Order: sequence, then structure tokens, then C-alpha cells
Amino acid sequence: MGEAELSLAAVRDALVREEDSIVFALIERARRPRNAPAYAPAAGGGGGGRSLAEFFVREAEVLHAKAGHYQKPEDVPFFPQDLLSPLFPTKDYPKVLHSFASSVSVNDAIWKMYFNKLLPLFTVDGDDGNYAETVALDFACLKALSRRIHIGKYVAEVKFKDASQDYSPLIRAKDTKALMNLLTFKAVEEKVKRRVEKKARIFGQNVTLEDNADKQEGNAGDSECKVNPEVLSKLYDLWVMPLTKDVEVEYLLRRLD
Amino acid sequence: MGEAELSLAAVRDALVREEDSIVFALIERARRPRNAPAYAPAAGGGGGGRSLAEFFVREAEVLHAKAGHYQKPEDVPFFPQDLLSPLFPTKDYPKVLHSFASSVSVNDAIWKMYFNKLLPLFTVDGDDGNYAETVALDFACLKALSRRIHIGKYVAEVKFKDASQDYSPLIRAKDTKALMNLLTFKAVEEKVKRRVEKKARIFGQNVTLEDNADKQEGNAGDSECKVNPEVLSKLYDLWVMPLTKDVEVEYLLRRLD
Repeated sequence: MGEAELSLAAVRDALVREEDSIVFALIERARRPRNAPAYAPAAGGGGGGRSLAEFFVREAEVLHAKAGHYQKPEDVPFFPQDLLSPLFPTKDYPKVLHSFASSVSVNDAIWKMYFNKLLPLFTVDGDDGNYAETVALDFACLKALSRRIHIGKYVAEVKFKDASQDYSPLIRAKDTKALMNLLTFKAVEEKVKRRVEKKARIFGQNVTLEDNADKQEGNAGDSECKVNPEVLSKLYDLWVMPLTKDVEVEYLLRRLD
Repeated sequence: MGEAELSLAAVRDALVREEDSIVFALIERARRPRNAPAYAPAAGGGGGGRSLAEFFVREAEVLHAKAGHYQKPEDVPFFPQDLLSPLFPTKDYPKVLHSFASSVSVNDAIWKMYFNKLLPLFTVDGDDGNYAETVALDFACLKALSRRIHIGKYVAEVKFKDASQDYSPLIRAKDTKALMNLLTFKAVEEKVKRRVEKKARIFGQNVTLEDNADKQEGNAGDSECKVNPEVLSKLYDLWVMPLTKDVEVEYLLRRLD
């Protein structure tokens, strides 16, 4: 995001583009098997009993912050307490959200979902020893998922501005359930699920020159896709869209402060 | 790589899979405009006059090395002098290449090619201020390109093993040109170029539910692809395949030491 003018169309475009990044990141992570040792608490140097995955994400976030990342409200670190100030000049962004926006985070839930639920769904059992590469690929998945979900702050702001008369009484009543209902459009959610599934099918196919040009989604069945397309549909259904709405509700509840 | 048994088929599969990673990485980088300030020497803190891009790649490589990366001969750092030993246990890989393999590197040439030649071809002019994100995306491109090109070490080893009687006299004569000829298969190179172009067309399309299902490569012309497919063909033609062969020749010249 970062447009001076916030519109629902621009926010939707950002969400749609982020789908590609999520599918790419998952396809890349699926190159490697589960690699469980990367997630076990490690005795060895510097990690302080942390897993390699946690060590890597913490240190990578420190580096990204030094380079100037995490300035925008949709870029939310998983370990904000570790971060240093940027060493390089950064640009100011148009402030279209309320000032508390940066503190709205569901990253703890994303972390647990990713490692406990999602990872076993799209990686094969096994250990090929490429632990460092594996956790770098995990970090890319986490970042893409987190960004997509925290763009919910912009969704909430746009929807609030378009219908503040509907939202304001519910916000004042702290009626989380009614807010959630107001933010839920089943037909739209079904479309999103079908679209990410289609993206997984197209982006995860094995492209060869011999393919017939008569099928957009390749000749292969889903089992030959690098990530099962149904996993994407499930990811969005069970976690990405609900967590995005959690972000929206959390943002809205403080919108009148 | 990492198989105990080295075969040309396995090496080719690795090269083909790496194409997807390169296309994905370029598509992701193309989300952002050129963002020239990320590449200018920076006065500000910690960078020591280095550009943000160089600062980021150096520090990212330090982190990846601490996590255990750069153990395998196809994973070659751009700044090897900066690296620390892994802080976490790593697995040994089957040593299928000669021991000098890790020191064969064309990363200086890849670095110059990427920033001076390739980047202007697939990013639009402009400055959106997302410098930290931009250089992280550059790092992903550099890593994927470098890995693809340095898999050439395995190509060379396989080809040498299959026809050492052809290679050995040329190696002893240090006949670089004849080695290069022996490693060049124009028909195969044309196929690779067409395949990466096709991958850019398929992976870089804007997928919508409304697409007709009658074209694998989408309804859009190349101008609507996130990265112009011709850039991929050109990248492979002018730089990736020649640099891969440079790696192969450099490896072969020391193969009989």
C-alpha cells in the first residue's frame, strides 16, 4: 500500500497481488521436505535454546529493520522487541490509517498456524539436511502471509469510511460479533478461495515445451502440482481470511479512540 | 543437488526447477520500481559508504552462513570474506565434486550483470521508497541466479565422467575455447530459452476466475505479464547460459589437478 488516496479497489488489487506472492513462497518452500530439526530447540551456539527457525526469523527481522523495513503498518515484525532503528534513510509514507495501526498484530497466531497447521499440509515428510535454506524459505512464507493479513487494516479503514454510520454504533458497543458479520461476504470469500486454488494450479505446474496449448492450467492433475491447490483454498478458508477479519475487527474497535 | 549418485538427468532436473525460482524471484522484484537510491553509495550509519543493496546482501549472507548455508558447492556467497561459521549443526553432503569446487565462483560477474544490465530490463523507472523490501527482493534474485549458474559444476563433472577421453587432452592443453565448444549444444540452449520465456508467460500472468480455460498462457499479451517473457529469454541467452559454461570450464580446467 502507500497510496495517498485509499480506495477499496486499490486495497483489493494489493490483496490479489499478494496471493501470487503467497503461492510463490509456498511453492518454493515445498522444494524441501519438512526438515523437522530446523524447528527443534537447539542447544548449539548463539541460539539460546531457540530453534533454528526462530533464530533465523529474529535475526532476519533485525537486519530488515536496519535496512529500513517495518515502517508501514502492513509490514509487521514477528519479534518487534528485538528491532533496531534503520541505518539508512527511509521515505515517509502517506499516513492513511490511524496512528495505532502499526501496533495491530496477529503475528503470534500466524506463527502458530504456519508451523503447526500449514507446514505439514504442503511439505513432504523427510529430512534432506538443508536447514538454513528451509528456514529462509519459511521466513518468506511468513512475511507474505503476514503482509496479506495485515492489509486488513486498510480494508477496515476503507469500509469504515464508506459506512461509518453502520460501524460506529457497533464499535461503541464493542460488538465484535456484529462487526465480524458486517465484514463477512461469503460470496466474495468463495471467489477468493477458488482464485488462489487456480493460482496454485497454474504457478505450481511443471511447464514443458511439449505441453498442449489447450489448457491454461496445464496437463497435470493436482497431484503433480508443486503445492496441492486445495491446500491454498484451505489456507485461505481456515486461516488467512479469518485472521484478516480479526485484524479488521481489532483495528475497528480502536477506530473511534 | 546432494544426491549420492550424480546423473545428467538429476542435474538437468535441478536446472529446470531452478528456472521456476528465477522467474518467481524476478516477478517479485518487478512489484517495485527501480528504486535507484537503494543502489547509491550511502553516507548514513553503518554502511561505510556502501549502498543499501550491498549492505543488505553482505549482512544477509552473514546471517545465512550462521544458519548453516553455503556448505554446498552450488551455494556460493557474493562476499565470502565476511562469513562466520554455522552456529547450528549442519549435515554433511555426499561429496560428488572435486574438493576445489566450492572455490569456483563467477559471482562478481553475476553481481555486475544483475545490477547494471538485468535490473533496468525488468523494473520500471521510479522510486516508491520501499528500499528495504527492494534489496531483499534483489537478494532473492541474486541467490537464485547464482545457484543456477553454479550448478554448472555438476554439469561439468557429469560430462567429464561420461567422456573423460574427450575432455582430458583439452584440459591438459588448457584449451578453453575447445572446452567451451564441447560444452555447447545450440539446440538445447534454444529449448531452454523458449522454456523460460514460456514460464515467464505462465507464472507472470494475472490470473482471474473469468479467464477462458482455452489458453494455457492466459489471455493477456506479453505486455500484461509481470515480467516481459523476452527478458527471460535474453537473460538466459546473454548471461545465464554463458556464465554457467564459464563455471563449467573453470571447473574442468582444474579437474585433473
